[in-house]
Amino acid sequence: MGKMDINREIGKLDWSKEPKGLYEPIAYTLSAGGKRLRPTLALLGAECEMRNAECKMQNAECRMQNAECKMQNAECKMEDVVQVALALEVFHNFTLLHDDVMDKAEVRRGRATVHVRWNENTAILSGDQMLIEAYKLLSGIQADKLPTVLRLFNKMATEICEGQQYDMDYELREDVSIEEYMKMIRLKTSVLLATALQIGAYMAGANEDRQHALYEYGIALGMAFQLQDDYLDCYGDEATFGKAIGGDIREGKKTFMLLMAKQLANAEQLKELESRNYERVIAVYDQLGIDGKAQQKISEYTSQALEWLGKVPQNEATQQLRTMAEKLLKRER
Amino acid sequence: MGKMDINREIGKLDWSKEPKGLYEPIAYTLSAGGKRLRPTLALLGAECEMRNAECKMQNAECRMQNAECKMQNAECKMEDVVQVALALEVFHNFTLLHDDVMDKAEVRRGRATVHVRWNENTAILSGDQMLIEAYKLLSGIQADKLPTVLRLFNKMATEICEGQQYDMDYELREDVSIEEYMKMIRLKTSVLLATALQIGAYMAGANEDRQHALYEYGIALGMAFQLQDDYLDCYGDEATFGKAIGGDIREGKKTFMLLMAKQLANAEQLKELESRNYERVIAVYDQLGIDGKAQQKISEYTSQALEWLGKVPQNEATQQLRTMAEKLLKRER
Repeated sequence: MGKMDINREIGKLDWSKEPKGLYEPIAYTLSAGGKRLRPTLALLGAECEMRNAECKMQNAECRMQNAECKMQNAECKMEDVVQVALALEVFHNFTLLHDDVMDKAEVRRGRATVHVRWNENTAILSGDQMLIEAYKLLSGIQADKLPTVLRLFNKMATEICEGQQYDMDYELREDVSIEEYMKMIRLKTSVLLATALQIGAYMAGANEDRQHALYEYGIALGMAFQLQDDYLDCYGDEATFGKAIGGDIREGKKTFMLLMAKQLANAEQLKELESRNYERVIAVYDQLGIDGKAQQKISEYTSQALEWLGKVPQNEATQQLRTMAEKLLKRER
Repeated sequence: MGKMDINREIGKLDWSKEPKGLYEPIAYTLSAGGKRLRPTLALLGAECEMRNAECKMQNAECRMQNAECKMQNAECKMEDVVQVALALEVFHNFTLLHDDVMDKAEVRRGRATVHVRWNENTAILSGDQMLIEAYKLLSGIQADKLPTVLRLFNKMATEICEGQQYDMDYELREDVSIEEYMKMIRLKTSVLLATALQIGAYMAGANEDRQHALYEYGIALGMAFQLQDDYLDCYGDEATFGKAIGGDIREGKKTFMLLMAKQLANAEQLKELESRNYERVIAVYDQLGIDGKAQQKISEYTSQALEWLGKVPQNEATQQLRTMAEKLLKRER
């Protein structure tokens, strides 16, 4: 199941309901596209386990094991995994909607944000409803899997809110450490990718070790992903990246790049870093080799991700996850 | 289990977590008190059924039935009902928090609202977290009850958001009918009371007829409750009511009182009603007997509530629900 299929499933969700003021912004938000990374990871998390079962079957070439494998597959209803994948995408878009209000962001995926196109109250309320819709999607899965799926989802949702709070707190603090920044992006970005993989794997019957390995792969992938995002905001190509370059610098956002530069800067460079001027800040980054340091960090996290991935039985799905991590190193948008 | 016990249970929830910016506003909101009406109704909904079982036991005076009754009780874990009751109260306070942002309300229960005491972003994010916390509380109940409880809760949560959207829509429309207003307050106020009762009853093993009767009792109670609120905003005593009188009039809020008055007013009175001046609007209400018409409507809904209540076996808990509806007619705050 690829991105096209996920978009098709998302398209099946019906938002042509009353009151329009509540549901139209939800349809607008979900139709904007995006990478559909979270639902893809949930599905791959499940497929890691399921194709596994298929592989075992092929090796054994024995009728009894054949029957067992079918059973193992039957226990994991693929339509339930799809429901959960959609819930994760709806939840992710809820966080974007509310984050955009809090950050006063005007553009998302090349279009006006909801609070700009409608108004702030609409963005708050439709966002609330999206969070409820995510729980609605979750609640429909087979009852025996529901308690664990909810527990994992709730933990993740809480961590995302905590991450957003730290993000806002750090805007007002001048003494944020690189360690704190890393913790924040772990909460704000990584745990959702990790939980998507874990829930998918859990639903397909993965044992705790395999769930854990995929979770940790997701954490490392998310860290690399966010650091690459920070990097592209400095060094990306505007047309390819899809949004204006240098936004973080102009806002004085305490990214890995800025925090690392501040650690290494002399008094004069420190003053330049505080200018929030794109050219002047980048000049200091170049002097200090921040570019290379960020790339190195991204590469470290990518290696970590691949290492965790090596701990689960390899199949087609793990190969896709491997490719995903490797592509990340080269991505430009 | 009374209001004091509910406050004790709410007090046990631990919000002394990091980041403080996320959790302190939640502690602040939940410690402000209030009627604790929703958790009370959830507990009474369950007790309607459970004391029922006790009564049967006493009548039969037979060992076997005794044993059955104990079993019936055991199936409904009272601690789970308490969890759900707390979830409903946390959810209710989440809606108040976000509604206050949307309505730009500065005072709630005699204290500064969260977006005034902190800021708007805090109110949005801590509100989001409260909604997640409500789901966390729900998710911990016994697994066999979880799917139905979630389904009922999700339906109610959606209706509340729809009600809030209609409320905001109606602010911008001049042609709101009394029927539309009634539908809006049903969604915004009644369904939460009704669902609290239904979930409580369901958890205690009530059949669908009894669940339905208690649900409809809750709907009618909620309607009477909201109309009384509208009434007290016009005719209440500021000190007793706990908030400033005439707020609805000054904001031109399309309440039952105003919509009814507009229907009956002549051209001159219509102009007065549009003045948004407390004395002038009340003068027209007095001329048209709006006071009495509101009281009559409240009394009608109260009768409806009592009628539905008559459809379930009577016991101590139903007696408390009866008293609650009767007191409502006389409440001044």
